[in-house]
Amino acid sequence: MDWLVKVTIQLKESILDPQGQAVKSGLEALGYKNIADLQVGKYIELTVSDEDKEQEVSTQVEEMCQRLLANPVIEDYNYEIEELA
Amino acid sequence: MDWLVKVTIQLKESILDPQGQAVKSGLEALGYKNIADLQVGKYIELTVSDEDKEQEVSTQVEEMCQRLLANPVIEDYNYEIEELA
Repeated sequence: MDWLVKVTIQLKESILDPQGQAVKSGLEALGYKNIADLQVGKYIELTVSDEDKEQEVSTQVEEMCQRLLANPVIEDYNYEIEELA
Repeated sequence: MDWLVKVTIQLKESILDPQGQAVKSGLEALGYKNIADLQVGKYIELTVSDEDKEQEVSTQVEEMCQRLLANPVIEDYNYEIEELA
């Protein structure tokens, strides 16, 4: 069974986000003055193949986030797992 | 009324994604051999304030993606809009 995993990674709230500030300023310069807050993060979409149980996929994704995908010291991550046909 | 907008931006399928390839290789080197496909994109979370209708927020976000957040020539984007309390 194959699984589609969508991981979002963002800087923790206490960490400065200069890229987010730059994008927010860019939007303001274009006339969008109603943006209260903006954060830029990473989005990783991956397919895990040949696993039987969602629980196993979840354990593996958690591990991959901790070890490589995110930097848990400064970043928070979330993921969703969907079964593929 | 305030709205939380979550934008995901990914390279179009026909565009080479060397960063995704590198992350996939990194995961394989750590022993995760069951990753069939991996793409790295951007995730932008923003708050739009003082808009009354979800439709107006949606129109604005679509415009912001086209003009600044994404590069529509090589990237696809998706967004979700949630009402904030």
